[in-house]
Formats: sequence, structure tokens, C-alpha cells
Amino acid sequence: MADGPERSRPMGQAVRPARSTIRDVARLAGVSVGTASKALNNNGALREETRERVISAARELGFRPNDLAHSLHRGQSLTVGLISTDSFGRFTIPIMEGLEECLSDSRIGVFMCNATDDMEREARHVEQLLGKRVDGIVVTARRADQRPKLAVATPGVPVLYVFSQTDDPETCCLVPDDEGGARLAVEHLIGLGRRRIAHITGPERFQAVCLRRDGYRAALGRAGLPEPEGFYLPGVWSEGWGREAVAELLRSRKGPPDAIFCGNDQIARGAIDALRERGLLVPDAVAVVGFDNWEIMAEATRPPLTSVDMNLRTLGREAGLTLLDMMAGNEVRGLRRLPCSLVVRDSCGAKSTGAAAAKTLDDSP
Amino acid sequence: MADGPERSRPMGQAVRPARSTIRDVARLAGVSVGTASKALNNNGALREETRERVISAARELGFRPNDLAHSLHRGQSLTVGLISTDSFGRFTIPIMEGLEECLSDSRIGVFMCNATDDMEREARHVEQLLGKRVDGIVVTARRADQRPKLAVATPGVPVLYVFSQTDDPETCCLVPDDEGGARLAVEHLIGLGRRRIAHITGPERFQAVCLRRDGYRAALGRAGLPEPEGFYLPGVWSEGWGREAVAELLRSRKGPPDAIFCGNDQIARGAIDALRERGLLVPDAVAVVGFDNWEIMAEATRPPLTSVDMNLRTLGREAGLTLLDMMAGNEVRGLRRLPCSLVVRDSCGAKSTGAAAAKTLDDSP
Repeated sequence: MADGPERSRPMGQAVRPARSTIRDVARLAGVSVGTASKALNNNGALREETRERVISAARELGFRPNDLAHSLHRGQSLTVGLISTDSFGRFTIPIMEGLEECLSDSRIGVFMCNATDDMEREARHVEQLLGKRVDGIVVTARRADQRPKLAVATPGVPVLYVFSQTDDPETCCLVPDDEGGARLAVEHLIGLGRRRIAHITGPERFQAVCLRRDGYRAALGRAGLPEPEGFYLPGVWSEGWGREAVAELLRSRKGPPDAIFCGNDQIARGAIDALRERGLLVPDAVAVVGFDNWEIMAEATRPPLTSVDMNLRTLGREAGLTLLDMMAGNEVRGLRRLPCSLVVRDSCGAKSTGAAAAKTLDDSP
Repeated sequence: MADGPERSRPMGQAVRPARSTIRDVARLAGVSVGTASKALNNNGALREETRERVISAARELGFRPNDLAHSLHRGQSLTVGLISTDSFGRFTIPIMEGLEECLSDSRIGVFMCNATDDMEREARHVEQLLGKRVDGIVVTARRADQRPKLAVATPGVPVLYVFSQTDDPETCCLVPDDEGGARLAVEHLIGLGRRRIAHITGPERFQAVCLRRDGYRAALGRAGLPEPEGFYLPGVWSEGWGREAVAELLRSRKGPPDAIFCGNDQIARGAIDALRERGLLVPDAVAVVGFDNWEIMAEATRPPLTSVDMNLRTLGREAGLTLLDMMAGNEVRGLRRLPCSLVVRDSCGAKSTGAAAAKTLDDSP
């Protein structure tokens, strides 16, 4: 996120009052606007040294943290539009949370609109948002695959795609690192001594399926392990497919796997059920890893499921910081992939990190 | 929702231009503002006769549907704030969708804030929303239980509690009819010839648990059926509890149930798994009904689960219409319970309505 030439903005940019801005602070401290915002709002992970440099720059310029919102948005509306094509679904929720949390620190409100994959409706929403003079637009989706750019031009109003991407390298897109997440999962299995690792996953028309498969193969390759024939099973995102694919794996004459990396938690749940119903113990006979860390699902499997977490909340926060950067006039573009992490429970035989398991299950009707 | 005395409003109300408003149209047609809005926006379920009466009233007054937003909100901001204490969770999503869908018909945007059960944070959000001059505030929650009123006074700005209620009879609250939903479920089982119906459910500190239990007992009572000792099992909202409770029911010397009504879909899923693992066929030996119609869960049980749907999306739409009513100056107060419905799949042996089953399962990674 390098500083770039200033964007032309429809309002507020021409008059530049004497009071110093967050950009001045960031420039003096030698950090990005996002980092300066983090430091002044006292949130986000920053090195203490960086935080102090920002604070001392702010002091030098007579900048008060309370000026933050004003300085960023003089003459603007302090609002950001969020367009979801996911009906605010399971993946959008944590992104929304992170985004809202980050922006509300800067007193910026989030306007939400639900476009449900309807391009006409989406265009109408963009018009409405522009009519409300939003300072930026975040587009999020049900899946991180490519989608067309917004159909309505938004001159001067930055647009950010999150868990969503376009084919235009000029647009700014934030997505989880699916390939890296898959590598984490498979390396975990290899580290626990598993050698015959199968991969059951969703349909290949999803980019995530291809990237996770690549990560699976890369991890096997690095460890010098083979991918036995028939061990890669693309299908659908359901428990039923997880059960079916296990049956298929066990029918093969090449011998059963000692571990299965699943493309999502629902597949993993079906796989675990099928293994148990065939008398194969998890994790003793077969270790299983899922993807998504969908807690309500991962904690209900028997045993509880180790799973890759896409850190969508962090993705949302990062989207907020990036948008602040863009709103401050910095040019930010291109695709960024943010790291996944692994939440270890009991389905691989490793010591559980326990953090997730502590969550209460009886807290919602 | 009777028309009441006009609320005092901080702005816009004093000057009343000659152009007719939606209230004038509603008054002439003899309907509520919500109904008039539905008719003019051509959405919602209305009798054709009502719709026509509204349209002819609008014509008579020279009122164009395009004036709707203006007439409702002259001098106002065309924005509504949504405060969720549910981290925009599973129950809030469909409510948000319905609300946003309804209000966007009137060109009103929704500002969202996430309060996560933190009263201080909630108060800060209310201040921010009032600072943005929202025309109304909707408060939603993770469960329909009583909560304190908003801590910040909002004079002139209507506040509506959805899937959430306060102990103040002056506030306007919309919640699902839990008792009626439970009666639907148990009457369905009785209609299919089941006579020994158990009820496994969540913790009694949830009002929903008590109301659903009352509905269960009311349905048994009306049919002259007994509630065998030990057949009502409150516990927690988890699959594990569903499995445990089935074990408890089968240990009893009073004989097994021929049907189980479960307080949520997770409990139902655990119950179905436990029954299958004990060789008891669902629905042949034991019929099972869940609650929530959480599709991803209800469709993954074996067999797919018949479940009570709280119609949260409709609740959200109704909240939007009610808020439009309040914003137009009508006084609306008190608690309204909106009806649930039953989605029939295969777990009771009735003919599946099939509608829900048609949804694709492979549409999200």
C-alpha cells in the first residue's frame, strides 16, 4: 500500500485548512494512513515503537486523535456503503463485523445494501449510495471468485472488493489466501506423521477449490509424499458428498488414507460420520481437517474438528483500514491475499489449542 | 397498529406543504400508512381490492408513488439505524434482509451498528446514529428475551425492537410467536397419529423455551393426550444434549416416545443421530420435529428435518413497514407476535412440501 498520487475528489479537497491532518501525521511518522489511524485509535497489532513514532508525530503537529474523523473527511459524509451479494450470509457476517468495528473507531457509519447477485438491483443500490454521498464503497460476496466491476461509475469514490475480486488489475481486492490455508492444513497432517493424505472438496468451478487443491499438492510435493490415484475428490459442498467420498476412498484397492483434508467443514463432518459408521476411529485411524472453521459445525463433529480459519473478521478490519487509506487520497490497487490460520481441535490427534472449544454452545435458541 | 396522536418531531413537521402525503392517501383509502406503502410500492401480500382502493386514493390526491419517500421524510435523512447485539448473527441476517428490502423500496438506507451486548458501546452507537439524524432506530438481538430500553433518549426518533423486547409496554416490539410455532409442530405430530410425544429443549432461562413448552402442553391438552413423566427435557441448545436426552428417554421404564418435538434444529439433529445409532428408524419408529428451520442443518439430517420456521425475513419486512408508520407520525406501541410456519421434510413421515429441499447445497464454499 504505497502512497500514490492524490485522487481527484468531488468535494472537500480543494480547500485545505491550516489544521494538520492524519496524512500529515502519517507522512511525518513515515507510515501509512492506516497505520497512523491504528496507532492514534490505539487498536490493531502494531509494534510499540511504531505507535510511539506516530503519537510523537501527532504531538509535534498539534494533531489530536479527536480530529481524526474530521481530518480524514472534511466536507465528506462519514459514511461508507457496503454492498453484499451474499444476502449478508455466513461469510459476510464476520467481514461486516470487522469492517464496522474498524470504521466506527473513526466515527464512520456503514450503510448496508443487499444485492443478492442481481446486477440491476446492485446498480440501483450504487446510485442510492452515491446519492447519499458515501465516502467509499465496499463490495462483498458469497465467494471470493471473480465478478464484474460495479456497473455504475463512481468517480472520486473509492471502491474496495472484499472476499470478492474483479478481473481488472486496477481494482483493489482483498481475499483470503486459500492456497496458503490448504498448505497449513496438510503440513499439520504431515507433521503428525500422516503419509496417505486424501483431499475431498467442492466443485472446481470455485476458484477456492483450485487454490486449495494447489496448496494440498504443494505441501505433499515439498514433503516428497505421493498423491495416490483417486485421492483427490472434487464434488459438492455438502455432508452427503463427504460421506459418499469416504465410501469411494474405502472401496479403492489401493488402501485407505490415514488422513483426509476436506475443502469445507460440512464435507469434513460427513466424512467423519462415514468413518465412524464404518468403525474407523478419528483421529487414530484417519485424521481429518476441515476448512472455514465454522464453529457451530466444527464443534459439533465427533470428535471436534481441526479446521482452517480464513480470518474473515481480520479481513474486514483490513478492508476498513485500506478504505481509510483510499479515502485519504492514497491510491491502493491490486489483489491482496491475507493469511489463514489453523484452529486445532481433536480430529487429528494433535494437542487442541482449546481456544475455540471454550465457546458456549447454549447461547442461542 | 391504530392511528394515534401525532408524535412531536424535531424537524420537518412544522411546515406542511400543499403536496399530498402518504398519510393523506392512507386516510382517504381508510388503511394504515404501511398498507398504503405496500400498495403503492406494489409489494407485500394485499387483497387486490385494498391495493386498488389505495391507488385510486393516490390518483384522486395527485399523489405519485415517486413522492413516497419525500412525503414521508420531508426534511429528514432517509436513513434508519440498525443496532444488532447479535454480531449480525444467524437470526439477525434474515431480519436485516427483510428490513433492508422493505426500506429500500422507499429509498431509505439502513445504517448498521454492532453492539455485541455491550451497553456502553450501544449508547455510543445511538449517539452516533442521532448525530447522523436517522429517522428511526431498529434494535435487534440474538434472542427474543427482554432487554433494557436503549440507554440514550431518542426524542422524536421512533425506536422499534425486533426479535427483542423490553419490559416497558410503551415500546414497540415485534417477536415471533414461539408458543404458536410449538403448537403447529405438536399438532402436526398428533395429526400423523403420534401419541407419546416428548419435548427436548434448551435452558429455561430463555423465554422461548418456556413459550415453546407451553405450546407443546397446550397442543397435548387439546388433543386429550398425556405428557408422560420425564418426557419434558430442558437442557442446552446443542447436538450433544439432543443425543444425551434421547439416551435418557430410552433408559426410562415407561416406554419410548413415538415422536420428539425439539426446541431447536441442533437438538433435533443430535436426537436423530442418537436414534439411528440405537437402530430406531426416523420417522417409522420415532418422528422428529425441530425449530428454527435452519436450512443448512435441517437439510443435512438423515432424514431431512421437518422444522418450525420463525419467518424472520417477514418479521424484518414487517418491522420496516411499522417503522414507516411510526416515521409518518403514527403512534405504534406494544408487543406483537408474528406467526411461525411449519416446513415439512421427511422426519415425521408426512408428505414433504419439498419447497425447502430444492435449495442447492453446493452454492457456498
